[in-house]
Amino acid sequence: MSNAALDAKSTRSVKAPAEVREAVVNLMVDYAIAIDNDCLESWPDFFVEDCLYRIIGRSDYDSGRRGGFVYCDNQRMLIDRVHSLRAANVYQPHLYRHLVSASKITATARGTIHAETNFAVIRTSVPEGEMSIFSAGRYIDEVVMDGQLAKLRSRTVVTDSDAIDILLVIPI
Amino acid sequence: MSNAALDAKSTRSVKAPAEVREAVVNLMVDYAIAIDNDCLESWPDFFVEDCLYRIIGRSDYDSGRRGGFVYCDNQRMLIDRVHSLRAANVYQPHLYRHLVSASKITATARGTIHAETNFAVIRTSVPEGEMSIFSAGRYIDEVVMDGQLAKLRSRTVVTDSDAIDILLVIPI
Amino acid sequence: MSNAALDAKSTRSVKAPAEVREAVVNLMVDYAIAIDNDCLESWPDFFVEDCLYRIIGRSDYDSGRRGGFVYCDNQRMLIDRVHSLRAANVYQPHLYRHLVSASKITATARGTIHAETNFAVIRTSVPEGEMSIFSAGRYIDEVVMDGQLAKLRSRTVVTDSDAIDILLVIPI
Repeated sequence: MSNAALDAKSTRSVKAPAEVREAVVNLMVDYAIAIDNDCLESWPDFFVEDCLYRIIGRSDYDSGRRGGFVYCDNQRMLIDRVHSLRAANVYQPHLYRHLVSASKITATARGTIHAETNFAVIRTSVPEGEMSIFSAGRYIDEVVMDGQLAKLRSRTVVTDSDAIDILLVIPI
Repeated sequence: MSNAALDAKSTRSVKAPAEVREAVVNLMVDYAIAIDNDCLESWPDFFVEDCLYRIIGRSDYDSGRRGGFVYCDNQRMLIDRVHSLRAANVYQPHLYRHLVSASKITATARGTIHAETNFAVIRTSVPEGEMSIFSAGRYIDEVVMDGQLAKLRSRTVVTDSDAIDILLVIPI
Repeated sequence: MSNAALDAKSTRSVKAPAEVREAVVNLMVDYAIAIDNDCLESWPDFFVEDCLYRIIGRSDYDSGRRGGFVYCDNQRMLIDRVHSLRAANVYQPHLYRHLVSASKITATARGTIHAETNFAVIRTSVPEGEMSIFSAGRYIDEVVMDGQLAKLRSRTVVTDSDAIDILLVIPI
């Protein structure tokens, strides 16, 4: 079954305890603000060690394709990615602002929370101050509790646009 | 009294039990994601049978005008609308992404929750991937519980812009 | 230590009781909707009397500069600001729509809740209906309880863009 067909199966959030919902909200918000505040070195800490992070265009995702134009399958790769970004961007030509809607919890099973969350990222050029929509789409996440802290075991960023400037891709 | 004057009367949310708030959040998010995932056939299920759904420009709404440029006053009309959209759009030239803020619960009375919610919809062209703001405004809703499930008895979509391409109007 | 360095110190929300979280959510949403509904006269009521409200560009904020291109250090100045806006705008040429993500609660101490919240404001021209991003950034807030009501003791609006049309600055 394609991912698009799976989407159609359940249009309603499952019930989840208040502490689960709070943990998910906090994770989404803390993640977004850490990136927007340029705390990129903290970004890998939002994931468990054995994790998946990828960015994939929607048409590829819907047709069930694997991979993505960014694909990291462990935390070490995320750390390396931050190093590359820091090395490539001697000066910072853009600012990013994540807008994140509330999450739809699609399933909770065996200690894993499955959630989907709409997002948009607004980019501001420096110093001109011109603002534009950099990316819009949804997060498809698997969240686990690491002690008291919610972390991502898997984050698939499905972007509505297939055209994204890979060289510029800060974490989304 | 005009709708604009009524808005000014109460600027603060009323208190509501946690389960009511959760039901409203879930409804807002599930509704948005269902549309964005192109599960249009599920869209009428977010409403009770005897419902109202309309899209109206803000100047018309503020001056208390009835109607709207989309106006459906029962669930059957919503189902018909989905059929028309599917017939008209043989291929899908755009993707839509709803961003939804948290809801302001303005009243709860006789089993009905009154809520207002800011939204914006970002449209992405396919395959070019160009993104623009398609609509921004607020939902003015009446929510009722249908068993365990929150549903819309009435959704008035008040768009800040009066200029909207009706032919293209997917559910907002 | 610069504000940018302080940001990096704590990337995770602190735990907060459900009623605190609810009060913060309601404050953010009620504030946004009051402005968007053109209830500007209610805007100062979201602050305590001895308050701070300022709008500052991100580069200035990050480098620890004081002040801002809008700076009000008591509620009286907010009331005056509304009067000026009403006097200047005989007719209303634009509509504004705030999109507000969930809040990150960064600290709670001695009755004060410290929170950060990403926002964007979409502006619609009247009557053309053209939409654009007016501002994007984050709120850095100190929230206190005034009886049952959460109010702002301090709101610093940090805009990603340093270029903002001051003459047009409605409350953000």
